[in-house]
Amino acid sequence: MGFSEATRVEHQDGPTWSAAIEPGWDIGGNANGGYLLVLAARAMAQATGRPDPVSVTAHYLRPGKPGPVRLEADAVRVGRRFATATAVLLAGEAPLLQAVGTFSDLAKAEGPERVDAAPPELPEPDDCVRIHPDSGKDPGFMSKVDLRLHPDDHGFREGRPSGELRVRGWFRFPDATPVDSLGLLLAVDAFPPTIFNARLPVGWTPTLELTAHVRARPQPGWLRCEFTTRFVTGGFLEEDGEVWDASGRLVAQSRQLALVPRASA
Amino acid sequence: MGFSEATRVEHQDGPTWSAAIEPGWDIGGNANGGYLLVLAARAMAQATGRPDPVSVTAHYLRPGKPGPVRLEADAVRVGRRFATATAVLLAGEAPLLQAVGTFSDLAKAEGPERVDAAPPELPEPDDCVRIHPDSGKDPGFMSKVDLRLHPDDHGFREGRPSGELRVRGWFRFPDATPVDSLGLLLAVDAFPPTIFNARLPVGWTPTLELTAHVRARPQPGWLRCEFTTRFVTGGFLEEDGEVWDASGRLVAQSRQLALVPRASA
Repeated sequence: MGFSEATRVEHQDGPTWSAAIEPGWDIGGNANGGYLLVLAARAMAQATGRPDPVSVTAHYLRPGKPGPVRLEADAVRVGRRFATATAVLLAGEAPLLQAVGTFSDLAKAEGPERVDAAPPELPEPDDCVRIHPDSGKDPGFMSKVDLRLHPDDHGFREGRPSGELRVRGWFRFPDATPVDSLGLLLAVDAFPPTIFNARLPVGWTPTLELTAHVRARPQPGWLRCEFTTRFVTGGFLEEDGEVWDASGRLVAQSRQLALVPRASA
Repeated sequence: MGFSEATRVEHQDGPTWSAAIEPGWDIGGNANGGYLLVLAARAMAQATGRPDPVSVTAHYLRPGKPGPVRLEADAVRVGRRFATATAVLLAGEAPLLQAVGTFSDLAKAEGPERVDAAPPELPEPDDCVRIHPDSGKDPGFMSKVDLRLHPDDHGFREGRPSGELRVRGWFRFPDATPVDSLGLLLAVDAFPPTIFNARLPVGWTPTLELTAHVRARPQPGWLRCEFTTRFVTGGFLEEDGEVWDASGRLVAQSRQLALVPRASA
């Protein structure tokens, strides 16, 4: 099942949408955070009547397990160019994720350009390191995305973290379906955490909150991605993401706040 | 009227708080965005029973004018360490701001430390350039905060923008009242926009969305602040903020997404 079908939401009555957390979009049994955000964003896009997420924020409340879910989405304000909505994703009566987003039609995006940054330099995808799906009958999230890590950034997978809190790589869907503006919300949370490259005794880092800005609809092709962390402090860390499309344009920025588990400190 | 009193919220029934947009917290007649966010954050802090905003996001829907306002705040999930709420700030029936936030008690914050950044280097406050309040009977927002800009970053005020999309400076309250964790939400939106230092034909930049992470309660004293923009594209720009306290610790990070007005392009 591809990305669009696996993130389908169906309008019921009033503010209610039904959906499902499909099996296979998980890492170790918990649905990927970007995947859950896409479900909420689809409901908000329908509630606002605007296709593209300009800025969306999710607060993660509970892990998501495969099964039916419900979305309650409300348009808070619908303006000429922008419309804002809230959404909560529920499994039964338990909220998994609280979201807010402003949506627009980015086909109309234009303005003066000034960019003081460049896409990450990456070897060609075939010269990067693919993260293969888990073997066995439950291949998990890495069968749903095609990630190719920069050779300098993948050493943590063999017990040799680079020491730099950075992960760079390519993103696409395995069947090369073009990534749309909602797919960018998956891309910004698809890579291994930067902290895996720390020489710190840190294991998994649960995401408290993720905000993504979409600047433009991506051109078809591989996306160049870079994630960095500068501040591990107070029990928290941020992870900043940039996603650039095949035309060399910045299409998304993201920042998430994650917990440094105390047990591993 | 000081910051705490000017941002007071009073619980009414159920999810409802009353408050007022006090005169003087405006720039050109519209209340400062950080000020509005503080009102929402205070209601969310009370709704969750947790004092410190760990991550808060506001989407700005309409300008705020002085006068009575109402807040509807709901705790979405209250956990052991973190609690999440939504809030909407309304003037009459018109929503001005939609917010979501996760709150905690940051007195307990701890964990491994790794910081790959340093506070901005600034001349002493008295050797920086103070932004004075407007003269006349309505001195506005700059009478509520004491900002001292880095001498290299204030040329835009005399028609000589630096060309670098950066604004650095000191922040405190005029009476030197210590800034608490809610005050940091004001600090991250108090400085002139970075885009004023561009040599681009850009005027005012309305904020669509602002997210702030608070890492720690600040120590008393001046706060060192730095705001930068790397991407002006598609009609949008981001502004990233860092706030460091007198002990040299990062206490807040922020990012806002603002509009580059088309008329000025």
